[in-house]
Amino acid sequence: MMDLVCYDCGRTADAGARCDCGEPRWLESDASAFDWDDCGDMNSLWRYADLLPVEPPDGVGAAAGGTPLVRTARLDEYAGCRLWVKDEAANPTGSFKDRGSAVGVARALENGQSWVGTVSHGNMATSMAAHAAGSGLNCLVLVPSDIPPERLVHVARYGPEIQQVEGDYGQLYYDSLDLSTDLPGVRFVNSDTPYRVAGQKTTTLEICEAFARGEPSAPRATGATPGESDTPEAPDAVVLPVSSGGHASAAWKALRELREAGVLDVDSVPRLLLVQTAACDPIAEAYRGGRDEVRPLADHEVGETVAYSIANAAPPSGNRALAGVRDTGGAVVSVPDDAIVDAKRQLARRAGLCVEPASATTLAGLRALAEAGEISPEESVVAVATGTGFRERTDSTGMEPATTTLADLSERVTSLVESG
Amino acid sequence: MMDLVCYDCGRTADAGARCDCGEPRWLESDASAFDWDDCGDMNSLWRYADLLPVEPPDGVGAAAGGTPLVRTARLDEYAGCRLWVKDEAANPTGSFKDRGSAVGVARALENGQSWVGTVSHGNMATSMAAHAAGSGLNCLVLVPSDIPPERLVHVARYGPEIQQVEGDYGQLYYDSLDLSTDLPGVRFVNSDTPYRVAGQKTTTLEICEAFARGEPSAPRATGATPGESDTPEAPDAVVLPVSSGGHASAAWKALRELREAGVLDVDSVPRLLLVQTAACDPIAEAYRGGRDEVRPLADHEVGETVAYSIANAAPPSGNRALAGVRDTGGAVVSVPDDAIVDAKRQLARRAGLCVEPASATTLAGLRALAEAGEISPEESVVAVATGTGFRERTDSTGMEPATTTLADLSERVTSLVESG
Repeated sequence: MMDLVCYDCGRTADAGARCDCGEPRWLESDASAFDWDDCGDMNSLWRYADLLPVEPPDGVGAAAGGTPLVRTARLDEYAGCRLWVKDEAANPTGSFKDRGSAVGVARALENGQSWVGTVSHGNMATSMAAHAAGSGLNCLVLVPSDIPPERLVHVARYGPEIQQVEGDYGQLYYDSLDLSTDLPGVRFVNSDTPYRVAGQKTTTLEICEAFARGEPSAPRATGATPGESDTPEAPDAVVLPVSSGGHASAAWKALRELREAGVLDVDSVPRLLLVQTAACDPIAEAYRGGRDEVRPLADHEVGETVAYSIANAAPPSGNRALAGVRDTGGAVVSVPDDAIVDAKRQLARRAGLCVEPASATTLAGLRALAEAGEISPEESVVAVATGTGFRERTDSTGMEPATTTLADLSERVTSLVESG
Repeated sequence: MMDLVCYDCGRTADAGARCDCGEPRWLESDASAFDWDDCGDMNSLWRYADLLPVEPPDGVGAAAGGTPLVRTARLDEYAGCRLWVKDEAANPTGSFKDRGSAVGVARALENGQSWVGTVSHGNMATSMAAHAAGSGLNCLVLVPSDIPPERLVHVARYGPEIQQVEGDYGQLYYDSLDLSTDLPGVRFVNSDTPYRVAGQKTTTLEICEAFARGEPSAPRATGATPGESDTPEAPDAVVLPVSSGGHASAAWKALRELREAGVLDVDSVPRLLLVQTAACDPIAEAYRGGRDEVRPLADHEVGETVAYSIANAAPPSGNRALAGVRDTGGAVVSVPDDAIVDAKRQLARRAGLCVEPASATTLAGLRALAEAGEISPEESVVAVATGTGFRERTDSTGMEPATTTLADLSERVTSLVESG
């Protein structure tokens, strides 16, 4: 069994998501002897079973991870670097959250728990509800009492118990963790809890493995020999949207493990670049101020944003994410909505990828970092597109289709094709 | 270069999607020496490069295929067999159409064509627009003139040229193929054209490879040794929704190639089971009547259905799909909307998979086939979930969430967990 460890003060524990010092714990796997040859056969996150705290499950949980890494050369100029996109929309419920849900639900099954829960009304709730449904567990989804019902449609499909809770949503996060400790029958898998972070570190393991095997322009090649390629053995940077800090923490954990294993040497560890929406950017604010501690934002400091799914004013793993950035020589930036909207459009129109606005912050952030001289055109950078844009509700196509008739079709198409 | 061959009369050609006899052509690859060991490393359809007519592309096209095969044991009783679901929602635009689009667009690039086109207002249009965008090609999407604009939102994101055409939609399909022949600068990749069928045969290749490697309960294992397992070496049946007949034809083509290669022996070829919506079931009607030719339905014979995306009254590959069914000892059934809606709900609530109604016809159809004694509980069957349900527009969650307060949360959760 793996130890729960505080990244900050180093104290270990048998249970509990938070250390007495207030910081989040994660699971310490023994990575010292890990090598890419130890990967399993499966095209899913379970190929890294040696670094994971549970055995692979059956069903939908077995399908989490193993997402494509798409070389998006037509965006290089826009991004200011050689760009790859890790397409997390290929997960079973369309977001990276499936990685953590699969591991968290597998752990609940091992423990004989019949309920899992989470605090979310977005991708994480959808993911937890699906993985619970696929495993025959009950799922409790805690949401704010003022949430519009149509925001819960995608969660409700899988039949979870949805519970509205009046009161401070940030406090609810911590209260639900206490419930997990007090009630042995239920396991809350929140955005930065140890089993979720363990699952979510596999995003970065997959990215690094693809580069190590020298075929990062294709979906992960499982049989290529590490080192035989003219692409770098690791990306120069990995870019993530940051909200709670859970995924960023997981990325850092993966890089630490690969460094510990000697799979990445100290000089080749990718920089962690994190991006927030300017409307709610407490981690970027701390980074800009040179601080190690993230100050929660008050209500009046938070604005409306298209990237509402990452607008977390009091990120529970904010300090840990920031520590990961400092450790890897990275950066945190925030980007305004117009830059996010434009980046989202570019991803669709120049890469064929339809992402949610939160995911598009990565490309907008890269552009800002390139302008600031923090990345350069010859660098190889992976942007993690964390979730699908398919669920977005839009009525307007933004275009006025022309009309023709069958009789005139040939003439019309000829003129189109000849015009370019 | 591969020959274009008519499956029916056997005549070959250098160009053109349709044979002079009226039936569709497909590309004849030399599969006689194929073995699973010839698969490439990539976790995408390009691992079957030996059986494909184009070289692997860069970008989003490289990410098509390689989808999970999910063992859904909690649905076995409902389905009446041992059930696996092939989750095609994991493709870049959320449907199996990406397989054919990737191959078709790669072919246009090889040919130096700057335009691709398709006749569709659904998944295929979305897919073609995305793959064209990712490759820097222009895309022409032909839609009926009476299509509501909000149905085109997902297509429009990728910036194609959308052209409304007045006149018979069935005729438009064939007219656009003529354009492809007449105008060298544009390639139409319609639902049963040869390059699309070549790409779409990989769904079935992946299913058969997973069983051959003995790990069909997990996402495809690329390193396992064929034959080392207690699961069968091939599924007893593969179930597909059928509309144009293009995907069904592709499944049959894959099975023919594996049989030709000796990878599947004659007795182990899975039966092709096809499912239609009862509101529009010309192929099922022909099957029931013992005919080899599908009679197109008149407007008054077609009803409304939740599975509108597969309501094709005049399927261009209907006869070919039917021939595949007869050749493999399969069947064609149709199912009413209430059975489709219930199957869709079961897939979400017992497998964690959110599919579009067209995909849920597979599970509804299996249930009907089990009742008719056409499949039995010990048989291993793969249902192909062809497309994501994420794009479905629903406002109601169908549930009335309970409300509590932070102070009462512990009591509320305790009572929930204790009640089961």
